[in-house]
Amino acid sequence: MKVFKKKVNDKSVVILPIGAVEGHGEHLPLGTDSFQAEYVAEQVSKATGAFITPPIWYGVCATTRNFPGTLSISFQSLQSIVRDILFELVRNGFRNIVVLSGHAGSAHMTALQLAAKDVVDHRNVRVLVLSDYDLAYELRGKLFSENDGHAGTIETSRMMAIKPRLVMGAGKKGENTIPRFLVVRNPEKYWGGVTGDPKRASIGNGRKINHYIVKRLIDLIEELNKST
Amino acid sequence: MKVFKKKVNDKSVVILPIGAVEGHGEHLPLGTDSFQAEYVAEQVSKATGAFITPPIWYGVCATTRNFPGTLSISFQSLQSIVRDILFELVRNGFRNIVVLSGHAGSAHMTALQLAAKDVVDHRNVRVLVLSDYDLAYELRGKLFSENDGHAGTIETSRMMAIKPRLVMGAGKKGENTIPRFLVVRNPEKYWGGVTGDPKRASIGNGRKINHYIVKRLIDLIEELNKST
Amino acid sequence: MKVFKKKVNDKSVVILPIGAVEGHGEHLPLGTDSFQAEYVAEQVSKATGAFITPPIWYGVCATTRNFPGTLSISFQSLQSIVRDILFELVRNGFRNIVVLSGHAGSAHMTALQLAAKDVVDHRNVRVLVLSDYDLAYELRGKLFSENDGHAGTIETSRMMAIKPRLVMGAGKKGENTIPRFLVVRNPEKYWGGVTGDPKRASIGNGRKINHYIVKRLIDLIEELNKST
Amino acid sequence: MKVFKKKVNDKSVVILPIGAVEGHGEHLPLGTDSFQAEYVAEQVSKATGAFITPPIWYGVCATTRNFPGTLSISFQSLQSIVRDILFELVRNGFRNIVVLSGHAGSAHMTALQLAAKDVVDHRNVRVLVLSDYDLAYELRGKLFSENDGHAGTIETSRMMAIKPRLVMGAGKKGENTIPRFLVVRNPEKYWGGVTGDPKRASIGNGRKINHYIVKRLIDLIEELNKST
Amino acid sequence: MKVFKKKVNDKSVVILPIGAVEGHGEHLPLGTDSFQAEYVAEQVSKATGAFITPPIWYGVCATTRNFPGTLSISFQSLQSIVRDILFELVRNGFRNIVVLSGHAGSAHMTALQLAAKDVVDHRNVRVLVLSDYDLAYELRGKLFSENDGHAGTIETSRMMAIKPRLVMGAGKKGENTIPRFLVVRNPEKYWGGVTGDPKRASIGNGRKINHYIVKRLIDLIEELNKST
Amino acid sequence: MKVFKKKVNDKSVVILPIGAVEGHGEHLPLGTDSFQAEYVAEQVSKATGAFITPPIWYGVCATTRNFPGTLSISFQSLQSIVRDILFELVRNGFRNIVVLSGHAGSAHMTALQLAAKDVVDHRNVRVLVLSDYDLAYELRGKLFSENDGHAGTIETSRMMAIKPRLVMGAGKKGENTIPRFLVVRNPEKYWGGVTGDPKRASIGNGRKINHYIVKRLIDLIEELNKST
Repeated sequence: MKVFKKKVNDKSVVILPIGAVEGHGEHLPLGTDSFQAEYVAEQVSKATGAFITPPIWYGVCATTRNFPGTLSISFQSLQSIVRDILFELVRNGFRNIVVLSGHAGSAHMTALQLAAKDVVDHRNVRVLVLSDYDLAYELRGKLFSENDGHAGTIETSRMMAIKPRLVMGAGKKGENTIPRFLVVRNPEKYWGGVTGDPKRASIGNGRKINHYIVKRLIDLIEELNKST
Repeated sequence: MKVFKKKVNDKSVVILPIGAVEGHGEHLPLGTDSFQAEYVAEQVSKATGAFITPPIWYGVCATTRNFPGTLSISFQSLQSIVRDILFELVRNGFRNIVVLSGHAGSAHMTALQLAAKDVVDHRNVRVLVLSDYDLAYELRGKLFSENDGHAGTIETSRMMAIKPRLVMGAGKKGENTIPRFLVVRNPEKYWGGVTGDPKRASIGNGRKINHYIVKRLIDLIEELNKST
Repeated sequence: MKVFKKKVNDKSVVILPIGAVEGHGEHLPLGTDSFQAEYVAEQVSKATGAFITPPIWYGVCATTRNFPGTLSISFQSLQSIVRDILFELVRNGFRNIVVLSGHAGSAHMTALQLAAKDVVDHRNVRVLVLSDYDLAYELRGKLFSENDGHAGTIETSRMMAIKPRLVMGAGKKGENTIPRFLVVRNPEKYWGGVTGDPKRASIGNGRKINHYIVKRLIDLIEELNKST
Repeated sequence: MKVFKKKVNDKSVVILPIGAVEGHGEHLPLGTDSFQAEYVAEQVSKATGAFITPPIWYGVCATTRNFPGTLSISFQSLQSIVRDILFELVRNGFRNIVVLSGHAGSAHMTALQLAAKDVVDHRNVRVLVLSDYDLAYELRGKLFSENDGHAGTIETSRMMAIKPRLVMGAGKKGENTIPRFLVVRNPEKYWGGVTGDPKRASIGNGRKINHYIVKRLIDLIEELNKST
Repeated sequence: MKVFKKKVNDKSVVILPIGAVEGHGEHLPLGTDSFQAEYVAEQVSKATGAFITPPIWYGVCATTRNFPGTLSISFQSLQSIVRDILFELVRNGFRNIVVLSGHAGSAHMTALQLAAKDVVDHRNVRVLVLSDYDLAYELRGKLFSENDGHAGTIETSRMMAIKPRLVMGAGKKGENTIPRFLVVRNPEKYWGGVTGDPKRASIGNGRKINHYIVKRLIDLIEELNKST
Repeated sequence: MKVFKKKVNDKSVVILPIGAVEGHGEHLPLGTDSFQAEYVAEQVSKATGAFITPPIWYGVCATTRNFPGTLSISFQSLQSIVRDILFELVRNGFRNIVVLSGHAGSAHMTALQLAAKDVVDHRNVRVLVLSDYDLAYELRGKLFSENDGHAGTIETSRMMAIKPRLVMGAGKKGENTIPRFLVVRNPEKYWGGVTGDPKRASIGNGRKINHYIVKRLIDLIEELNKST
């Protein structure tokens, strides 16, 4: 870890990568979300000199929470640890922070946003909170189908490019049929853990998607530094 | 209030309407979100016999929080009061609950979902959590433009149909330019409080939108009762 | 809702009406406490120009908590939402706030007082916290008997004057025999939900009581504005 | 301390004495409330064989909170420690508990009641929550004036009988003029710390009042054991 | 109680004694820890003029929690009440505080330290947090064996010197065989409640140990007042 | 990450590695504690087949909290996230869990123990909570001096064996002179961040110490599986 080795100033940017430990079909590792967030953070750091903090491996898992291997933490735990870290980063002199999550669940993202709001309201700092999937989905309908999602074409493609040896087999096609708006105790009744078709994944498309995400995040960081 | 006047059984449905007190431009009342949720709840009740609880007027406001008249409550307060009410509804015999919010902010909706998850995980009950805007936006590009939103064409049209005397003047066109992903202390720097063009609103379109929402919610409730 | 339509200044007064959803015998509606608080707030507002916020319909119910229709919220939930709203009212410029509850349970009132203490300790504001029954009981032994209380002569009289169409039948006389100081799990074992004799209620006395409460509250608000 | 020396059975009664550390004029010690609660507990124990736990010396002080020597704890702290102790008493076999407070502030008493409700709702136990002043005030207008209160005739009389050497001088007459219903930051502006006239106190009346309280509490405990 | 009777200044020291209600074999009273903390505080006060607050009788008990008579409170309860009291002591003018615990469990001590950190971080005050056993154990291998501990030679000796009439019989030798590092639900399976040999206790050694502790604490307080 | 790839049964053991991000002099990386915990976990896993979860990189830092680069989280955050993960591990079938921390601060360790107690009290599971330094210090006076500690001989030796390229230079000798028992706001006033002499470190001793720790932990796990 080479975090904090360089001197921090008002222009310095630091990225806090956040993942989740959750089932991703039978073909992707439990830590898929963390690997993606860390990979993007590293690529952006190489291009921009941004600092990277050690990752938070754990996130709030809703629909996967009962799958084997999922280790979901509570909303409150995630909000609390991220808030602590953000305040500590400001104490260390950072004025530009990117909270980058490889997991995109809505409760998970809200926990990150509330943590960020706390620090923004009480310190002089700018914070971006996003999932790399917020950016990846801008490509929807191009390199993957409109309905693709968790452990599907896009995520499998990306992992083939990031951690090829952790992709085990081709995976099984799946669809999420959890009734819209229904809060369920047993999401696995309606969903096997894959949304989309991992068989349509390719390492080439994975690289394109990753490249796109990295480029978009670099642009966002540049805009951040241009604004007041 | 006629809540609980009829006997409750396993097929009974109850709607908990939730609003927000927040600035809606200069032309719409602070309680706009509550009026819409209550109106929809009443129409659905007339058609289906669903019960209605007294509303929660207050919600979590993010981008409007600094506007005059906004009375935003914390995430924790909203989650806590809704959780209490849901458990009490189950104690009163309800097995089918609809949490219907006229406000659609993401933190606000997450608070409602977490409250619902608590009761679903610990009681034998089915809960739908939605904003009427989740349904209204299915009409995007038809009766209002793709980018329309808070206090814009759609909301003004709906209020013209629901509470015409509370609509004061035509309103001013606006656009939300808060940088995507940026957590801001002063959202009003980037946004005047209106997203879309209230001048394009009409009472006729308001009725159509309201009618569509009511019909969609009735369908959702019927499906709820059909499922196990 | 016409809240916040007039300009707020240091002399402005705002009333936050608070109720409860709880069983009130067989003759009064579940929302009785809310109706009374809102009625008083409206009358005071007409006479003094005081602002009114949207009501909080839910309260902490102790002795009625197991009756059908009661939707009791926790002490913490009530304290938390009221504290949030009080801080927001101060942010909007109010320096004189009346928290007016139609429900008078001791835990319920303590939650309101603790919320008020928080804002009084941290902001420049004056807050009155009271139940309209604190005032009504000043008439004890005059228009109703010494022991009258929940859903009895006084409350039935008041509702006959406020919401006559929601009073259903004459009601049954009752007495609260919960042993003094005993904290009970099943208050309904000792009490049928009515304290006093609703049959002795009259619309005329209801008007007199309401009038007295309104006048007393107007006086309290005037004193509030006279003090530093 | 001889607590728990005798075998506990279903008829055993245990008293948890609770006080406060707060200013009581210039003539009474800071620990006045604790001394009174412990004295009553000891007398009742002698007569009935009731167990006594070690006291909680600290309470929630509202109107005295800014006086020198007052050590007020938060509502949450008091509720939490009392709840813990009540659950532990039940674990130790007690089925009859008396929470006896020498301090009678309304928030303080509510904290005790909420703690008791928690244990009553989850365990098979009967709990009385009271202040010895709830009993003493039944003598109002007899041995002390109607308006007597904190550090006044009654409390001074009682302390003269309980801890005569800790009563220092005759004390100064005082009146509490905190405006009713007003939540104040500085109660000492309206009140000097004494309500009533300590000069009218006498050791004889103190003994009578203490005797009355002890007798009443013994009766309450007997009724407790008679009920199911 | 003569606390706060003298005028407080910047050099004043106040001691907050903290105990626990927990089983101490069959020969020592449940309140052993409190008696020891209070005794030390009183001796130090006599020698130095330090103030003493009323004690907190209750603490966090880990290994004794299931023994008859133990009344363990939660970590959160202890931290919360101590934090409140520390802030109140600072409000009363104290700048030098000693939190002296007769109980030495690691979670218990951490709760005290976290409470102290809060006040140290936010107020201008110096706080010592220690158990009298932290000092007593400096004599290990001299007046008692290396492995002696809870209710053993040292604690029995000390109680023989402090409260001789509360020591009942000679006690039974015991050893703590709870597997190191294992978090257990039933510590009593591995341990009878005595660590060491109470039969080797003597009143003479008890006096020596107490004298040593008192002297060491006086030295620590003097150093405290010498430092800035 | 190969966590959860093998089938879990009642004999399975899982290790949760926990670190801290904190200053370790000028010669060791901020993540030193995490590297050590992960290294030990991996070695034990190789020898025993134990599962490893993704690490928690963040811990509660007391004395280093103000050093550049330290990112300390609150006691509550650590306790909360570890508790969540432990309950999830039990849900996944684990009955034997080792919480292994590379950081050994007392508040930090208490947070881990309280989290473990929660799961042990409510689930059928055995949990070991320890720091690898609890084991390493058994070698005190042998491969390093009695007073050696944070970033000193032992930690530098271990890092030379684990992550040689992250050890930067020889480091400076230091001593911790924070007054015993004093809770300080500014520990860096009394301590430079190194306890002991890093110049006496050697890769050979580092390997011996690491080997010893791994062997001891393997023994502890075997005993765990032998017990009921």
